[in-house]
Amino acid sequence: MSRRQLNVAVVGATGVVGRQAIEILEERKFPVAGMRFLASGRSAGQTLSFGGELVAVENLATADFRGVEVVLSAPGSSVSREFAPKAVAAGALVIDKSSAFRMDPDVPLVVPEVNPHDAARHKGIISSPNCSTIPLVLALWPLHRQYGIRRVVVSTYQAVSGAGRKGVDELLGQTAALLNQRPAEVKALPHQIAFNVVPHVEVFRDDTEGYTTEEVKLVEESRKIMGLPELRVSATCVRVPVLTGHSESVNVEFERPASPEAVREVLSAAPGVRVVDDPAAAEYPMPLDAAGGDEVLVGRIRADRSAGNALNLWLASDNTRKGAALNAVQIAELVFGVGPVQLSVGG
Amino acid sequence: MSRRQLNVAVVGATGVVGRQAIEILEERKFPVAGMRFLASGRSAGQTLSFGGELVAVENLATADFRGVEVVLSAPGSSVSREFAPKAVAAGALVIDKSSAFRMDPDVPLVVPEVNPHDAARHKGIISSPNCSTIPLVLALWPLHRQYGIRRVVVSTYQAVSGAGRKGVDELLGQTAALLNQRPAEVKALPHQIAFNVVPHVEVFRDDTEGYTTEEVKLVEESRKIMGLPELRVSATCVRVPVLTGHSESVNVEFERPASPEAVREVLSAAPGVRVVDDPAAAEYPMPLDAAGGDEVLVGRIRADRSAGNALNLWLASDNTRKGAALNAVQIAELVFGVGPVQLSVGG
Repeated sequence: MSRRQLNVAVVGATGVVGRQAIEILEERKFPVAGMRFLASGRSAGQTLSFGGELVAVENLATADFRGVEVVLSAPGSSVSREFAPKAVAAGALVIDKSSAFRMDPDVPLVVPEVNPHDAARHKGIISSPNCSTIPLVLALWPLHRQYGIRRVVVSTYQAVSGAGRKGVDELLGQTAALLNQRPAEVKALPHQIAFNVVPHVEVFRDDTEGYTTEEVKLVEESRKIMGLPELRVSATCVRVPVLTGHSESVNVEFERPASPEAVREVLSAAPGVRVVDDPAAAEYPMPLDAAGGDEVLVGRIRADRSAGNALNLWLASDNTRKGAALNAVQIAELVFGVGPVQLSVGG
Repeated sequence: MSRRQLNVAVVGATGVVGRQAIEILEERKFPVAGMRFLASGRSAGQTLSFGGELVAVENLATADFRGVEVVLSAPGSSVSREFAPKAVAAGALVIDKSSAFRMDPDVPLVVPEVNPHDAARHKGIISSPNCSTIPLVLALWPLHRQYGIRRVVVSTYQAVSGAGRKGVDELLGQTAALLNQRPAEVKALPHQIAFNVVPHVEVFRDDTEGYTTEEVKLVEESRKIMGLPELRVSATCVRVPVLTGHSESVNVEFERPASPEAVREVLSAAPGVRVVDDPAAAEYPMPLDAAGGDEVLVGRIRADRSAGNALNLWLASDNTRKGAALNAVQIAELVFGVGPVQLSVGG
């Protein structure tokens, strides 16, 4: 039985998320007819391997998208704003990982396990959510359907790879310098991140009442994906000296009673989620265990006696995979019906 | 004007907190008539310097406390349970940093800026709270008096020095190993902490519904110190790869409206607290800035629209100083009236 073959382009191919996307397309045997890699002029001319063949990286600025059916896009949002309309005009579906179009009412914002139906109403662009949003809604959505969410308070522990390769280089470079009694050089992130914790992910904006854009995204994107525009969410986003894997401490108040046992059962059956919750055996989600995997790990599930029907949970997820590249590839699988598994959840 | 001079003993003198206590006694010119250092048999015979003189470390197991007026005690709680009654019987006031007596109704649990009056009713032992509790109540107490706290949800980001010298050695050792492509050896903490985040501080107990003893302490100690036995607090305690400085993400719901501006003003006037809150200039509390200082840094103060009269804030504090040794020394200053400043706050 032959599956449909697609002409694919990866934009931002040389970045952290772009490389992950390429690996994940290979891992999942995405049915690729032709593959093109695009990046900034700086990276053009490099070669990257795909399916055992070397593919030259093209200059995005001068690229012609004719013939491309699906673009997996992972550059910065200003780059996406620039090229995406051209790719759409050339007939491609752009699955964009940047924040450029996420809150555009005409652009679906999709996590396939949560709102697959939204993907169908795209007009050429589908956005993939932020890397801290995806694991949160994967855990919250099945619980909302069962118990009704009243309010969420979330604090994150985010890896430096969320800031791209330069974030990774910065943590490793600073750590090596400090261990060798040299000063830590601060370039990519607002402060030293090695052996430190920085409550500042992305940027502060005048109109966001002291919240970072990362915190605003976590709130607004969660609402849009779950179709709950009034959902009450409070977010604090924090960078920690971890290479890969975002963790989140999540306090949820529900409309209806939700026992830890029942919640564990609901989450065990939820797609994209793996319950890791045996504190007596020191088993709970950690970024180190989430890294490299596809699932959002959820644990430390326990009743919170400080409010009615409240619960605490803790999750960890690979921010470069499900938090980014994997979700984008899954959206492509969903739209073109080429996924390894048929999605049966949502709506 | 000569101040009263006191005979002091430091128990657990060779540990992280013990050494900090010795430094802080020197820094604050605590009026010491005589100084003794005590530790386990393993450390006995070492010498430590105090006030320019070398003092031999005595074996705690065989120590005679006669003549000692105040003991600053920072060993494990089983050691405190063993020696403290003997020291009290010999006439000393024991200021104990361990968790041994904290929840004993006969033992005051004191943060001098919050509940100085409680110190007066001691019967030979005063407990100093846990290192994650102290900064939290320093920030919450002035706000409670002004606005009335309804509920608190806190997630911590705790440094490895909270686990003592072995925690510090573990993080540094693992980091060096990993940078040199060697495996990270796990000994003192439940999992690799270098480049990881572990939602497990202290231990899980059968009777605590999935919470760690650290989380239970944070809740129960905050209630006892502030004299609010019914206070609704939900805690998640997490170890991060930081050497010194505990941070906390705190969501508070108040009885009465509390604007960020007014809260900033209240906290600016609060003893032991320094407001660091200029996000536009990338200024907010970080463990790296809190380390070595006496104050709890509080910032990221912002309205939380997800609940009535709610607010988010973020704090960082040196867990080995105000979180431990400094608070104990301040209790001694308070009880013996030998502090550099007269406390005027509380009750």
